Amino acid sequence: MQVNEYFEGRVMSIGFENTEGRATSGIMQVGEYEFGTSETELMKVTSGSLEVRLPGESEFKTYASGTEFNVEANVKFQVKVKTPTAYLCFYGG
Amino acid sequence: MQVNEYFEGRVMSIGFENTEGRATSGIMQVGEYEFGTSETELMKVTSGSLEVRLPGESEFKTYASGTEFNVEANVKFQVKVKTPTAYLCFYGG
Repeated sequence: MQVNEYFEGRVMSIGFENTEGRATSGIMQVGEYEFGTSETELMKVTSGSLEVRLPGESEFKTYASGTEFNVEANVKFQVKVKTPTAYLCFYGG
Repeated sequence: MQVNEYFEGRVMSIGFENTEGRATSGIMQVGEYEFGTSETELMKVTSGSLEVRLPGESEFKTYASGTEFNVEANVKFQVKVKTPTAYLCFYGG
């Protein structure tokens, strides 16, 4: 399995693939991040909470544990993390 | 963050802690495993599926994505994994 590190190790993930698709399971530590997508992403928050500003939106929206959001391909989006948060990211769905 | 590897890298996890408690977010590849606990664990399956035989049970029970199970401290339990599976494990709850 591949372990990915971003933002000096403050975001880490493990890659996997199953019947739900290609995915990473990761943790974001407290911080503010900008991510770029190269394909569509379905982000599921599984513990903690993310404040997310998607392309074209003017304000951050909170996604709590148990919620999810979609991100288009080839865009950037901003995330504020106020508590360590676990997520699953499914690609290209 | 700490990355943990078990069973020659077929099970990997990343440690974190938030208001839900101390936890690891991990992936199990296809295989059969026996885990030991040193404290109570709450296991949440977040993608994929686990077949689990808990202490005192004679048969494996399937836990699908979105389900969870508790394990007592200081026991061993068996897991069969037929598709790569993401889980969260909360300790000492």
